[in-house]
Amino acid sequence: MPSRPMAMALVHHPVLDRRGDVVTSAVTNLDIHDLARLAATYGLSRFYLVTPAEEQQRLVARLVDHWCQGFGASYNPARAQALKTLVVVDDFPRAVADWKALAGPDALPVMTSARPCGTLSFSDCRQLSAEAPLLLVFGTGHGLAPQLFKPDWPVLEPVRSGHYNHLSVRTAAAVILDRLLGESCPASTEC
Amino acid sequence: MPSRPMAMALVHHPVLDRRGDVVTSAVTNLDIHDLARLAATYGLSRFYLVTPAEEQQRLVARLVDHWCQGFGASYNPARAQALKTLVVVDDFPRAVADWKALAGPDALPVMTSARPCGTLSFSDCRQLSAEAPLLLVFGTGHGLAPQLFKPDWPVLEPVRSGHYNHLSVRTAAAVILDRLLGESCPASTEC
Repeated sequence: MPSRPMAMALVHHPVLDRRGDVVTSAVTNLDIHDLARLAATYGLSRFYLVTPAEEQQRLVARLVDHWCQGFGASYNPARAQALKTLVVVDDFPRAVADWKALAGPDALPVMTSARPCGTLSFSDCRQLSAEAPLLLVFGTGHGLAPQLFKPDWPVLEPVRSGHYNHLSVRTAAAVILDRLLGESCPASTEC
Repeated sequence: MPSRPMAMALVHHPVLDRRGDVVTSAVTNLDIHDLARLAATYGLSRFYLVTPAEEQQRLVARLVDHWCQGFGASYNPARAQALKTLVVVDDFPRAVADWKALAGPDALPVMTSARPCGTLSFSDCRQLSAEAPLLLVFGTGHGLAPQLFKPDWPVLEPVRSGHYNHLSVRTAAAVILDRLLGESCPASTEC
């Protein structure tokens, strides 16, 4: 069975803060670069950065312009290459709609959480990724807000179930992508 | 065979810059947190931060003080827990000496590189980690300088051999630790 294309989303709203309140988190410069470079490394088709904050969107646009058009483009072309997959959207439903339009109506969000609420194992997710164009969804702050979860969207098991479970979203995304697409990584299907 | 303890080092000197010159790179705040959190997640015994720059060492000491003694200690105790493994050293030989003193004379540095110079496969490294207390060595900037490599220290194969191979050291370390210690991760041996 041929591998289907895959995308990921980094959500800044709605996410939880340390008290459990729903907030909009600030965009972190290194998150953009690290996740864009992961997307390029593992052959993802899209990296959706979800934030409703116009000021933050302008910040991201400036950053992308620097690396893709400005001085950064010649200084470090690998950054420009990675940022090609980046798409900034106002809210998560737009990311889902864009991904469905691009990859097909069977596109499926797969939620992630460091909490022990995920029941989709990595091996089952790997199998699922051969059947449907997955959209891996990562939260910032203290994780994706409950209202983002839908009953028919699977939740991936946490990276670790051990005693210490506080990875940054950058390193957690790296581990998750490698477990799903690493080593015996099939050539990705461009879409 | 019981698993042996493992450590890692993040080297800021001697490393290469984009032109291939040997330089001292600046310490990046998020590197410290991301790698300390990885060390805690995967049960590493030590995370050596190697920099000869006294000003940078003072910066790290202030940061550690904030999270381990200051306001950060109560604000986010998980950061303090992760930073417990952090040891700042002036140069790489001191990291090796400290790790040998702590883990045993058979302690072995394993160098990492994004370049295709590594011949130690991940499965062989996993096997080796059961036999000797490994010290995984990560470079900043454009990678570890050649003078750090010794003939009897193995070099791990790159994370990817594909066309795009520009991960941040944070995400590369995450993938490498997970490949060596993830999923079927044995309980680490404290030393």
